[in-house]
Order: sequence, then C-alpha cells, then structure tokens
Amino acid sequence: MTIEETALQKHLEWNGKLDTTAKSHVNTREDLAIAYTPGVAAPCRKIAETPDDVYRYTMKANTVAVVTDGSAVLGLGNIGPEAALPVMEGKCVLFKEFGGVNAFPICLDTQNTDELVDTIVNLAPGFGGINLEDIAAPRCFEIERRVQDRLSIPVFHDDQHGTAIVVLSGIINALRLIGKKKEDCAVAINGAGSAGIAIAKLLLRYGFTTITMCDSQGIVCSKSPRLNDAKREMLKYTNLSDREGTLADAIKDTDIFIGVSVANVVTPEMVASMKKDAILFAMANPVPEIMPDLAKEAGARIIGTGRSDFPNQVNNVIAFPGIFKGALEGRAPRITEDMKLAASIAIASLVSDEELSEEFIMPEPFDPRIAETVAEAVKKHIRR
Amino acid sequence: MTIEETALQKHLEWNGKLDTTAKSHVNTREDLAIAYTPGVAAPCRKIAETPDDVYRYTMKANTVAVVTDGSAVLGLGNIGPEAALPVMEGKCVLFKEFGGVNAFPICLDTQNTDELVDTIVNLAPGFGGINLEDIAAPRCFEIERRVQDRLSIPVFHDDQHGTAIVVLSGIINALRLIGKKKEDCAVAINGAGSAGIAIAKLLLRYGFTTITMCDSQGIVCSKSPRLNDAKREMLKYTNLSDREGTLADAIKDTDIFIGVSVANVVTPEMVASMKKDAILFAMANPVPEIMPDLAKEAGARIIGTGRSDFPNQVNNVIAFPGIFKGALEGRAPRITEDMKLAASIAIASLVSDEELSEEFIMPEPFDPRIAETVAEAVKKHIRR
Repeated sequence: MTIEETALQKHLEWNGKLDTTAKSHVNTREDLAIAYTPGVAAPCRKIAETPDDVYRYTMKANTVAVVTDGSAVLGLGNIGPEAALPVMEGKCVLFKEFGGVNAFPICLDTQNTDELVDTIVNLAPGFGGINLEDIAAPRCFEIERRVQDRLSIPVFHDDQHGTAIVVLSGIINALRLIGKKKEDCAVAINGAGSAGIAIAKLLLRYGFTTITMCDSQGIVCSKSPRLNDAKREMLKYTNLSDREGTLADAIKDTDIFIGVSVANVVTPEMVASMKKDAILFAMANPVPEIMPDLAKEAGARIIGTGRSDFPNQVNNVIAFPGIFKGALEGRAPRITEDMKLAASIAIASLVSDEELSEEFIMPEPFDPRIAETVAEAVKKHIRR
Repeated sequence: MTIEETALQKHLEWNGKLDTTAKSHVNTREDLAIAYTPGVAAPCRKIAETPDDVYRYTMKANTVAVVTDGSAVLGLGNIGPEAALPVMEGKCVLFKEFGGVNAFPICLDTQNTDELVDTIVNLAPGFGGINLEDIAAPRCFEIERRVQDRLSIPVFHDDQHGTAIVVLSGIINALRLIGKKKEDCAVAINGAGSAGIAIAKLLLRYGFTTITMCDSQGIVCSKSPRLNDAKREMLKYTNLSDREGTLADAIKDTDIFIGVSVANVVTPEMVASMKKDAILFAMANPVPEIMPDLAKEAGARIIGTGRSDFPNQVNNVIAFPGIFKGALEGRAPRITEDMKLAASIAIASLVSDEELSEEFIMPEPFDPRIAETVAEAVKKHIRR
C-alpha cells in the first residue's frame, strides 16, 4: 500500500485521531460532588474573585487551540474547515505526543478577516494559547496581529514562525559546519507569502543583512506587479538597492537559497551561480524547488527539504511543541522574536560537533530532548 | 474537610479535569507520515470531495462542544467565561465518563446574542453537536433557536431540556406508583426561566393539560409585570383561564409542584393545600424550595430535589450523555421533542416495579444501563 492508502485506512479505523479524556474519574457520588456539583462551585468562585486563578484550577494553563479557516491547507489549498480537520487533529496529536501540551482543533466556518478575528477572540478564554494554522496569506498576518493585540495569551501562526525557527536552526548549524559568518552571507528567498516573510524577518533579527525576496514574478521590488502591504513592508529591510530581476538574478552570488514556493523552479545552472559552499533549503511540498541530487551535482554543499526521505528535513514538529510548552509554563503573554531566536539556537545546539555533518544539521524529530530544551530556552526570554 | 475544601484542593491537583489524548500515537517517522504529512492529505481530499466523509475520517462523529458565555453558572450567576470553565470541564468529563462522548469546553467572551450566535455557528464544523450550558434566559432561547436553524447538527441547551427530560421521567414513575393519570393531574411550576419553560413544554407534549406557571411576581398571566416573549408564548398553553394570583394560589389543589426557583419559597401550608398524594420536585440549589422532611410532614407523598443527599435526585447526568450518544450515533440533525420524550420514557423504564418506591423513582446515575438505553430510545426517533 502507498502512504496515501495506508493513511486513508488508518484514518477510517481511528475515526478521529484525538480523544478527550477525564483526569478526574467519576465513579462514585462523592467523585461527582467534587468534580461537578456542588463542589465545582468552589473553584468557580475563586476564579471569579481572582481571574488569574483560572491558571491554577483549570486546563487553560496547558491547553492550546489549533485554529484554521481551511483556506491554505498543506499543498491542497482552500479546501474549507471540514476537510482541514484531519490536519488540525494531527497537529493536536503532535502537540500532545511531542510537547505534552493539550491541544484541540477549531475549524472555523468563515474566511472573513473581521469575523475570524472576533470569533477567535471570543473563543479564547478557555485556552492558554492560540496556534493559527493553514490560513492563507496575506489575511494570516492581519489576523495574527489583531488577535494578539486583543489577547494576553500567545498567538502563533505556525506556518510562518515555526517554519522560520526551524530553517534558522538549520542555517545556524550549516554556517557552523562551513565556517561562514552570517554577516558575510547573502540570502535569496523564493516565496513571499507567510512562510517566506517570516523567515526573512527572523533571519534579519538574527543578524543577516543581505536578503533578496522573490515572488512568482521575480525579485520583489518597488515595481513588483503583485506587491501587497506585507511585501511592501519587507522592502524596508530587504533588497535595499531595489533592483529588479528574475529568480536567477536573485540567486546569483548568494550563499543561501531558501525556497518556500513551488516544484522545480530552481535549475542546476542557478545553483552553480551561487557562492562556494552553497546552502539550499528547497521546501516546496511534495516536490522541492530542485531535487537534492541535482543541487549537489551543481555544487551545493548542504541541502534541506520538507521531505522525510531526504536528509535535513525542515519539520515544524521540532519547534512548535516546545515553544508552546515553554510559553505556557512561563505564562508568556505573546511569543516574541527573542523567544523565536532562542528556540532556533536551542534546536541547533542539540546537534553536537561530532554529529554535525552536511547530512545532519538538525536534530531528529524524535530526539527526546527537543521539547524540553526548546521550552527552557523560550522561558528564559519571556517578558511580561 | 468540607466538599468545597476537598473540591478546591482536588482542582488544584488536577489543574484541569480534562486532557486531550492521541489515538494515533506517533513514535516513528512512518507514524508521522501517516497521521500527519504527507499521508493526512488523503483523508483531507476525500472530505473535500465528499463532505459527509468528515464523519468517517475525523473526530466530528463523536465530539460535542460544551458552550457557555458564563452568564448563568450554577447558582453563582453571571461570573463570566473563565470562572465558568471548571463547570464546563466537569460537564465534558461527564460526557466522556457516562456516555463515551468526546466533549470540549468552549467558554465565550461575549454576552451579545448576535455575536454568540455567529461565534457558535463559526466554530461548529469540527463538532458533531453543540451542548449549550449555563446561558441566561431569555437570551438562551433565541440563541438555541437561531444556532439550530443555521446548523445541521444537534444544538441542545441542557439546562432546559436535560432538566425537563429527567423531571418528566420522575413524574412518569411517580404517577405509575401512585396510580394517577397524567390527564387528571394539575401542575404548578415555580420559575419561568429556561428550565421552567422547557419543563412545561415537555409535560404538555407528554399529555399534561393543566399547568400553571409562576415567576417571582406570582402566577404568570397576561397582566404579569415581568412578561417577556418566552412567557407570553407559554400563555397559549398554560394558565388558560388567565387567572392572577400568588404562588400559594397556583399550588392550591394541584397534584404536582415543580420548583426551579429559589430556596424556601414553598411553605408547609402550601403543600397541605395540594391534592392527596402530592408530588413535589423542589430543585432550587443548594437549598430547595422546601426541605423534603417538611414537605413530607405537610402531606406530600413523593419528593425530589437537586441534591444527592436526599432521595430522588434530579440529575441531568441521567439524560445528556445518552441523548448525545444516540443523536451522534444516529446522525440526528437536531434533537426533537419526540427524542426527548423517548429519553424520559426510557429513563423511567429502568426502574422496575420491584424497585419503584416513594424514595426511588429514578435510576441511579451510576446505573451502567442508562446511557445505552437512552441512546437506543433516542435513535429510534431520529428523523433526517
């Protein structure tokens, strides 16, 4: 059976990958009186008096909502909230299995930005954090910003920030292996949607200075035909010479290429035009911007993809469970750029000098140290 | 320690009474590929093609949202969504423990009717049913009606219908014991909020004909000072002579008194003024409308309360887990009056002739037959 066939059959057997289960079992009248009425009135009163006590007496302290509108699901596009549910359930499973964090899927039946913001804010009181998932750009930027502005719990669009954190951790280790300095490296990013922009921002924050972004029309510049607010904002920090050109122009003479775009848009010639010891993250799914063997032949030294069947898989599961674990344990009101940087550095640190190689720049997803290490790093940078 | 002290300490230890847990454990790369990417795309595609498949491949089939705005929580009143969370978690625990139904608490940060309706409709796609909880009257009526009109999954305000179903099951057995016929019985209900009105409606549907409702101002009639749309509607079917009067006037010469109001409003004299073999459900919490021993002394034959320390506890846990279990298994688009009646009759049937007594008119909450029996009865009456 193919993966698809197996997945379909298993999903049918599971009929839901997530369960809710009682910590407080109810087997006697006394159990009922303590977990429910009349006993439950006591914690209710405490919280009514001291709102912060909700973190002591309820599941809010360790529970995240995984929220989508179904508008940009995997590579499948705008398939709607019901069809997005298997992905959201899967995400919740990963939160629990990797981070010990309770997570519940919330699939919203609207794609109107104002309505999405209001709905998410309205449903937030029972949650300790909001993980936004698979919401289309540029709507996702505004939703994240507006929801975060109205809530004092962390709001985190994983497709943006999770990806950025893991990519940066890989770059940190790639440079460590090669011996280049971030200040000396030029970076080209193909894809100026949610992930591309978040990656650019985090790289800038980390200390990269020379970044060129491309969209489907070529280099993003002031004359780009598909400029939007988000891309325009990025022009303040990227492509400072405002040059025009193609993807090939953007890639030429860079040290690092990052693709969050579509299959096969990078040619061996483009790779050959990069600096020595080129680093490529070709993360288009399921077919990368260039296949790793082709890139290698053309002279690339380190190649990462989104796939588990090649080395150096960029997998968000390395980041988000530990980030929320740390944010929840530390009662972070938001997830800051410093917290994200700390997560990248912590992830990178889990690869020892002995392990570090061209084919091993990031820890395995199943490395049992990851969530705890990321959580501790993140907690150190919480400001309240 | 008192119940309150124990409850407080246990809630602190639990730090949340509910967990989310993975059915699909993720221990290997293959697990990850099947439960998450790339395998999860297969069920997503199936659902996008055939929307009904969401019931086969996801948790929607067996998952209920327990939704509140925190406006009428237990006897505590309008304590808001955070302080309501311990009750909602408790409710979810009962759904799982008694009915095997997954349930998740959703505490909403708005008390505006239009916003509540929109928010609940927006968050519905991932759920197979909506249990409304502790929402103040009369807002709760409109919310339930409008949300149900816009969704094809059952929407059920348990404070109304759960209570009504359990009260009716008790009355069925009380009449069976005493030998009176429903057609011959006069009923007084004190409390014209959500529970009182739902009880009146279900009794009418069952075949009672003579019902008088009271609110805090006395008998509900066309001249009542606190008339609202819901009470006005009930005047078409209750107090048909449109008489005015006090609670004492309403109770006089009735066979059945049902209190969903406040402590100690019923005097022994009022009970003494009732017909022979009087039946009283005095469900004010935590102190009933009249204490059972006083009512007994005054001549009442069968007395139920909301408390577990007296016989005949009216406990919604006898009803809602089985009702949703049946509604979900049978894919009911809504919970009809016929389904509610079937639930009452099924609950009553679980008390055998040998068991039936003045102190045992309803099965124990821990009777293991209840949820299945109620579910099967409910399923027989689903119309799609």
